[in-house]
Amino acid sequence: MAKPGEGNGVDPDLQLPSPAEIAAAANRIAPYVYRTPVLPCEAIRALTDHTSLVFKCENLQRTGSFKIRGATNAVMLARERNPTNRTFILHSSGNHGAGVALAARELGCTAHIVVPVSAPKVKVASIISFGGVVHPCAATMAGRQNGVDALRRTYPDAATIHPFDHADVIAGQGTLLLELAEQTGGALDAIIVPVGGGGLMSGVSIAARALLPGCKVFGAEPLLADDGARSLAAGGPLPLGHRNGVLPKTAADGLMGVLSPRTYKCFRQNVDKIFTVTEEEMADALRIVLERMKVVIEPSAAVGVAVLLKRFPEIAACKRIAVILCGGNLELDALPTLLGKL
Amino acid sequence: MAKPGEGNGVDPDLQLPSPAEIAAAANRIAPYVYRTPVLPCEAIRALTDHTSLVFKCENLQRTGSFKIRGATNAVMLARERNPTNRTFILHSSGNHGAGVALAARELGCTAHIVVPVSAPKVKVASIISFGGVVHPCAATMAGRQNGVDALRRTYPDAATIHPFDHADVIAGQGTLLLELAEQTGGALDAIIVPVGGGGLMSGVSIAARALLPGCKVFGAEPLLADDGARSLAAGGPLPLGHRNGVLPKTAADGLMGVLSPRTYKCFRQNVDKIFTVTEEEMADALRIVLERMKVVIEPSAAVGVAVLLKRFPEIAACKRIAVILCGGNLELDALPTLLGKL
Repeated sequence: MAKPGEGNGVDPDLQLPSPAEIAAAANRIAPYVYRTPVLPCEAIRALTDHTSLVFKCENLQRTGSFKIRGATNAVMLARERNPTNRTFILHSSGNHGAGVALAARELGCTAHIVVPVSAPKVKVASIISFGGVVHPCAATMAGRQNGVDALRRTYPDAATIHPFDHADVIAGQGTLLLELAEQTGGALDAIIVPVGGGGLMSGVSIAARALLPGCKVFGAEPLLADDGARSLAAGGPLPLGHRNGVLPKTAADGLMGVLSPRTYKCFRQNVDKIFTVTEEEMADALRIVLERMKVVIEPSAAVGVAVLLKRFPEIAACKRIAVILCGGNLELDALPTLLGKL
Repeated sequence: MAKPGEGNGVDPDLQLPSPAEIAAAANRIAPYVYRTPVLPCEAIRALTDHTSLVFKCENLQRTGSFKIRGATNAVMLARERNPTNRTFILHSSGNHGAGVALAARELGCTAHIVVPVSAPKVKVASIISFGGVVHPCAATMAGRQNGVDALRRTYPDAATIHPFDHADVIAGQGTLLLELAEQTGGALDAIIVPVGGGGLMSGVSIAARALLPGCKVFGAEPLLADDGARSLAAGGPLPLGHRNGVLPKTAADGLMGVLSPRTYKCFRQNVDKIFTVTEEEMADALRIVLERMKVVIEPSAAVGVAVLLKRFPEIAACKRIAVILCGGNLELDALPTLLGKL
């Protein structure tokens, strides 16, 4: 088990934001993001034994996901560090691209976004509507990298913003926990956070450890993209698991990212446990939220609700719970197929 | 043009709640209803020229519609007037039934609800989940009346609660305007309110005239159920219009009610104008709200958004607008058909 850093798979040199940096990010980005509502849902609470249950509605955030928080913080800090550059280059199949597109536009910059042709239409439309310049590419990591490389030749001084492996991005995502702590008066015994590459969870868990002592921090993953749960169990970041030689595809397209050494380090320090759910459980949760809570969420957000509804003993034991609804960019035309999995 | 009352189609004896009675209703029902959020939607605002645009989200209200407000106020006052009766009888195809069911249960009573077999499944499930006893009936007014008559023989002392032709119900619905005025600091030049039987509009318009002087009060109706618009034009309440001998059916099932002499009287005094939209315009608005605002609304609520988006000159001239999203009980399985009308 020889691992870098402290012998627990953690490299101590990887930078993570401090709670103070998250608080500074909150002030920095406040003019550009919504303070999203915290909503109850009696019908869902009645399916559980919790005393109180609330949902932090980042699906109602600008661009329809929390990604605008980290994107705005990172773009603003990049502008401070290099005021002459006004161009950003990145690849994204969705919410991060929309976030950077809008953040860039708000700050008088332009974002060039390499988008795989397989990206959900609603997310591509969103990127374009927020002023992002879309460059289609093949739906592979190589295709994405080729696209970015070509853009870099055109814009050699452009900055890039990683969707999660970036302390400024993580600090921005953490700002939602500051709001949640205020909105609930800190009365929380557990929070449930969807996990993809781990940027949201990293920011939220750092802030939670500082502001909500005693509050459990639980992750939620699709079983078909359970690298976070397996990484924590194995003691180091692991890739997405292949099944019979094939990479399985979850409907939760926003959770396909894998932990980086940086986010893994943060998880190791701050995350109590990551729970997984099946595609069917996710579809069930999606239907319940649409029908009873009356907000639109994307499959990635349904994963957190599915974890809640699965009644894992560690979660069921908590009285006051918050679930983070990370995004709302649902492909409406795909909904019948999605719900048909029930 | 001989009309009852003041010669303008208005019977002066028909009781309507005063602003003070609406304020009293707000205090009375506060423990039983949500203070619903007021949300912006930049994407929809960008389609218009308004300086500010907000949505009062009664789709996020308990039971998924504003109806719980009037139902709770009416059930509480009925209990005060006759403390020995604990049974309520009514017919409803949806949201009013769910509202009375939950209000009755909260107050230790039982609601028996005659429900036509044609009612949306999601609404029937909602009535049952809130403790209502459902009695199916034929999908005609005669079928409904037979059902209620049969129940009345079983429960001769039961009270009934009309969905809109009732001062206590109207007072309850008006409470949402009190919240909206507070939440917006009164900074509104116009509100857009969906119109069915007119209970919501009556309560809201009475409160608006008292609290928001100068604020225009606009109604929104499907062209296929435009009795409100035609009634105002004709100077007296008119039935739903037949086309070629057939009663057309709008997808906005919540707006099929027709004004009563009571609600007509209120409209005549307080409503500036009622605008109509086609089924296609409604479907278009429904899609925009689901895709961009990320909340679930039912077709009846989409009618208000469609009126906003149609850019009628009287509305376009207003700077600061609020649209009331009256309900969120959307039949998910019917969504493809509904949106297919685009």
